[in-house]
Amino acid sequence: MAEMYLGKSTGKPRVVIIGGGFGGVNLARKLKDADVEVVMLDKHNYHTFQPLLYQVAIGAIESDAVAFPIRRIFTRQKNFSFHMAEVQKINPVANTVSTTLGDVHYDYLAIATGANTNFFGNKEMEHFTMPMKNLPEALNIRSLILQNLEKAAVTTNVAERDALLTFVVVGGGPTGVELAGALAEMQTNMLCKDYPDLKPEHMKVYLAEGKTKLIASMSEQASVKAKQFLNEMGVIIYNDVHVTSYNGNDLAIDNGVNIKTRNVFWAAGVKGEVPEGIPQEVILRGGRIQTDEINRVKGYENIFCIGDVAAMITVDSPNGHPGVAPVAIQQGAQLAANIINIIKGEATKPFKYRDKGSLATIGRNKAVADLGKLRFQGFFAWFVWLFVHIMSLAGFSNKLVVFCNWLINYFTKNTDNRLIIHYFDTETMMTEPIAK
Amino acid sequence: MAEMYLGKSTGKPRVVIIGGGFGGVNLARKLKDADVEVVMLDKHNYHTFQPLLYQVAIGAIESDAVAFPIRRIFTRQKNFSFHMAEVQKINPVANTVSTTLGDVHYDYLAIATGANTNFFGNKEMEHFTMPMKNLPEALNIRSLILQNLEKAAVTTNVAERDALLTFVVVGGGPTGVELAGALAEMQTNMLCKDYPDLKPEHMKVYLAEGKTKLIASMSEQASVKAKQFLNEMGVIIYNDVHVTSYNGNDLAIDNGVNIKTRNVFWAAGVKGEVPEGIPQEVILRGGRIQTDEINRVKGYENIFCIGDVAAMITVDSPNGHPGVAPVAIQQGAQLAANIINIIKGEATKPFKYRDKGSLATIGRNKAVADLGKLRFQGFFAWFVWLFVHIMSLAGFSNKLVVFCNWLINYFTKNTDNRLIIHYFDTETMMTEPIAK
Repeated sequence: MAEMYLGKSTGKPRVVIIGGGFGGVNLARKLKDADVEVVMLDKHNYHTFQPLLYQVAIGAIESDAVAFPIRRIFTRQKNFSFHMAEVQKINPVANTVSTTLGDVHYDYLAIATGANTNFFGNKEMEHFTMPMKNLPEALNIRSLILQNLEKAAVTTNVAERDALLTFVVVGGGPTGVELAGALAEMQTNMLCKDYPDLKPEHMKVYLAEGKTKLIASMSEQASVKAKQFLNEMGVIIYNDVHVTSYNGNDLAIDNGVNIKTRNVFWAAGVKGEVPEGIPQEVILRGGRIQTDEINRVKGYENIFCIGDVAAMITVDSPNGHPGVAPVAIQQGAQLAANIINIIKGEATKPFKYRDKGSLATIGRNKAVADLGKLRFQGFFAWFVWLFVHIMSLAGFSNKLVVFCNWLINYFTKNTDNRLIIHYFDTETMMTEPIAK
Repeated sequence: MAEMYLGKSTGKPRVVIIGGGFGGVNLARKLKDADVEVVMLDKHNYHTFQPLLYQVAIGAIESDAVAFPIRRIFTRQKNFSFHMAEVQKINPVANTVSTTLGDVHYDYLAIATGANTNFFGNKEMEHFTMPMKNLPEALNIRSLILQNLEKAAVTTNVAERDALLTFVVVGGGPTGVELAGALAEMQTNMLCKDYPDLKPEHMKVYLAEGKTKLIASMSEQASVKAKQFLNEMGVIIYNDVHVTSYNGNDLAIDNGVNIKTRNVFWAAGVKGEVPEGIPQEVILRGGRIQTDEINRVKGYENIFCIGDVAAMITVDSPNGHPGVAPVAIQQGAQLAANIINIIKGEATKPFKYRDKGSLATIGRNKAVADLGKLRFQGFFAWFVWLFVHIMSLAGFSNKLVVFCNWLINYFTKNTDNRLIIHYFDTETMMTEPIAK
């Protein structure tokens, strides 16, 4: 059984894909009709729709709606197989990947492991702040926020209450801006309705960003408008600052501000998830693996790398491409075509990124959009954002469920998924294990 | 702040309700217009719709859809407050409840703590088998089933594979029958589609019941038909048997059958969740607290008990009422009326159970219904089951989301929530803690 998949088998060239994110999934899909064997490895059995994790964290949508079983995506793809396994090491000489299930042979290897949170070596931040790059992390944030609201509702110590109700988002990129906006809406719409003892003015939302502007990857117009939206919603924004220390209670910022807070969310940076076995000399800044214009890892014939973990350094992209889903999706498609070309002995085609634009939502009826030359903000941008995100979700059921959630949230201004299912222990900074 | 709620406060009579299940929630709702202060305590911040937990366990519906935040249920109820707290002890002399948040004074106390799994003192079963009485337990089952399918897909050991694909449900009440049916549908509809290496004939589903018939609480006709449905779906049913031992691998049944299995689900019994401080002499068989005909705990003036944890022993109900949601809901409503009567000095009214009937679903288009004198089975019973369950769910969003899930499942025969979010560790029999 297992040998068939974990060793050399059908005689067809085998493409092993590490990671079932946007890049890996699209690469596998586009190999559907190719005369190859596709093997996907992921430590989770599901694909995660990362752009909506903040909505899970805030309790706006069901946790299960942003994830989709990888096997289900490929139910009908005959040349595909999936294994839930952690990759331990890549062995380029042997053409194998060592995993928790054993060694897997490859003819072509695609590294699509994505990015994880970058704390830039700051152990204190790593310990005390909450990242949000995967579903368990988003659920931990959901638990922490709700636990702290429950605690705030019963404490008789006003300073303690205020620290429990102070939320700091570190990082003003799209994720940070979206999370800060969602917290501000919680403050306005939910807090006094469901916590009669707490008042919106007891709660504070801060956003701290190192650059001089928010969502620096987008247009000046989008950036300015996003800041204006957040200001109107009551978010206190610090630009051009860095957080210098946080001990779980006191956060220090290098503009002299000290904030007493129990909720610090870290959205200030990412780094590539580089598997072991990739030599240091091809790992660039931010943990990205250097590739050529067909996503081939520098120095290898049959190892490729796509998406957030790849840095395609060419004349057109001297710093690589932005770490966003469309890049990963397009690189996956192009790499599929190129692997087929290589197998057939035909010429490969260099990757060209078609930037369709960027969207970020700040709140109800409030979003910013840069689409091609178009720049627009407000209700229509928000509507486009909703549409694009629903259509991009894997699985018809997820589309429908998220649509229902949003429809209801829009009319009721309520978020109904505020459940503490797995308690987050702020002593150990882990979910409490649940005995069956 | 907290003192207001956790100590004596407004001068109005205070009704403290322990537990936010069907009984507690309805009691609190019916006190909406009463001149009392209602305080609800629950260790979870959500109400659980237990009848659908098995659908979460099987991955058919979103985990968040069977739960609803308790605060959200009571958003508009002015005389209501909620505290997420574990009750440690009831102090009848002081009229207080000791909780993890401190002591809470009551004028009237309602124990609505429900029931938990009863292993009848069998420590081995308690350790190795999986109960399903709350949402984390249902999610643990979901993880275990999916983990074992993943393991089965890669093992080269056929005996090992078969043990991983053998599912035993202990207990042939409604829960056991519904779970066994759902497992059989997984075998037919999902297994070979998503696990090309596994064949339906590799998988086995057993149902072991101590009584001579299944769902003994329903009519003979329902019981016979349920068994027939399950037989048709390939479930191997043993009646009139008891499981005698299980070590995590080998399950022994007293009809001489030994089953190698890694998946044993315990739905064989429940016992009341009796808080400390209730004297032994009023605790009857199955951990139920004896009450009079107005749900007053024997020997107390102002302590009441409703739902699964109550045993109302009267001429009409010499063994108490069945442990089902409608009893809890009706007792909650009646107790609300009686507490108001007591406060006004008016006569109380004894509880009368209006049995509207029972429903159990075995699979797609297959359910059994006893409604009043009507007995029917098959598609229409299944349709009624769907309708009743959707309408009973708390929250419009949950209704809509479950409806969407079922609609899609019906047409695609797929279950899309098969996610291993919190890995279940079969060494420790706990979820693995997730560091943030």
